[in-house]
Amino acid sequence: MRWNAGKVQEISDSLIVEEALELRLADKTLAVLMRTPGNDVELVRGLLWAEGVTRGQEGPAAQLNCDGPNAIVLHMDPELVKERWSERDIVTSSACGVCGAAAIARLEELATPVLSDLQWSVGKVCAAPRRMRDEQKLFSESGAVHGAALFDSSGELVQCREDVGRHNAVDKLIGWALGESLLPLSDFVLVVSSRLSYEIVQKAICAGIPIVLGVSAPSSLAVDMAEQWRVTLAGFVRGQGFNVYSHAYRIVS
Amino acid sequence: MRWNAGKVQEISDSLIVEEALELRLADKTLAVLMRTPGNDVELVRGLLWAEGVTRGQEGPAAQLNCDGPNAIVLHMDPELVKERWSERDIVTSSACGVCGAAAIARLEELATPVLSDLQWSVGKVCAAPRRMRDEQKLFSESGAVHGAALFDSSGELVQCREDVGRHNAVDKLIGWALGESLLPLSDFVLVVSSRLSYEIVQKAICAGIPIVLGVSAPSSLAVDMAEQWRVTLAGFVRGQGFNVYSHAYRIVS
Repeated sequence: MRWNAGKVQEISDSLIVEEALELRLADKTLAVLMRTPGNDVELVRGLLWAEGVTRGQEGPAAQLNCDGPNAIVLHMDPELVKERWSERDIVTSSACGVCGAAAIARLEELATPVLSDLQWSVGKVCAAPRRMRDEQKLFSESGAVHGAALFDSSGELVQCREDVGRHNAVDKLIGWALGESLLPLSDFVLVVSSRLSYEIVQKAICAGIPIVLGVSAPSSLAVDMAEQWRVTLAGFVRGQGFNVYSHAYRIVS
Repeated sequence: MRWNAGKVQEISDSLIVEEALELRLADKTLAVLMRTPGNDVELVRGLLWAEGVTRGQEGPAAQLNCDGPNAIVLHMDPELVKERWSERDIVTSSACGVCGAAAIARLEELATPVLSDLQWSVGKVCAAPRRMRDEQKLFSESGAVHGAALFDSSGELVQCREDVGRHNAVDKLIGWALGESLLPLSDFVLVVSSRLSYEIVQKAICAGIPIVLGVSAPSSLAVDMAEQWRVTLAGFVRGQGFNVYSHAYRIVS
């Protein structure tokens, strides 16, 4: 649903695809990466190089084969890989772009759909990002920091946190709310200054937040998660307009 | 050095701070997070909640204590933590905002300073982001994808890659260059559509790229890395202006 200058219409929008890619060594999973499909062999080649797993002449030489659309097999001495890609480097976190697969599995295990009758008006949605910006002290200084803020049902900003990592800003905010014994946050709206990646939505679901707004675009996985767990997700909240990608009934004129 | 409309001046600029925070359980390191200092207990409380390590009433109850400015100690049954925070979830990657400490250590081990006489004119710097944008097919469709491009010494775009993750876009690009046996990329310039985080700079150093440009701001750690490993780092490349944060001698009028 595209809202603009107080009017709403249903439009078709393209979302960027975010899918898991498994990196395997023999029969073992080395890592699961969340990525936009395409140039997957290059992606893995570049990652292994930057991580120091392949070095010198082995870089171009290490053989990588696709095994279906979402798996890459690395052919390399397992002992050498193990030695170079030590445990500290194994990359699996829902807090970053790497390995959202575990996050999805964990949601199935831990989370419940967000049940909340909270509704927000179009005017509150449009006003929220600017209100958050006013609160962002670090952004004013550096122009380079992500913000996350909680708003209450009346449209008031309750708390704002900033961090160089967008997931960190949300963790700080929800960590604050945990300390205040406010969970589940059924009557709160989460606003982020960033792109709406799946990890933002995952954290919102875990905290029971029914409405999530961002100034930039959501990924396909973020929309899928929001749809499944009953979160209202709106992106491109700029000026008088925004797009609602899921559970649009919580936004009212 | 601030370039604007062909003129240059030295100015003072605020950078957002990006530092490692260690999360400990008894004597063991559970995770190292890269974050902007401040509200660290909230950050860890929120992260542990989203990861499902703390649940239900334990969420607010799990005791977290600061141990110096960059360490948090979690007081919780180690067996319970181990069970819930399985290996797949341990978050240490230079590819994301979590655990840049390992990335820095690895640079010391693997990388050499970027020695290159490449210079680029102010005109080439200003033109590059628009040229990359023209090449970004996915961005035109979705408005939500990061781009990374390599330019040659004459200012021509050589290759462009896109991904929902900014680190992935750079990995794809350098993975392509590895396949073409182009490393070290001493005569190339890396342009990214994103913020200049330390992981972008780390990947550039590993590939031997002397000049890195971004349309948004660098973090303090990105600038420190660029300074140490002799990378020319320029941010806020927009219209006729940009800022150079390190090794400015490679940018000429």
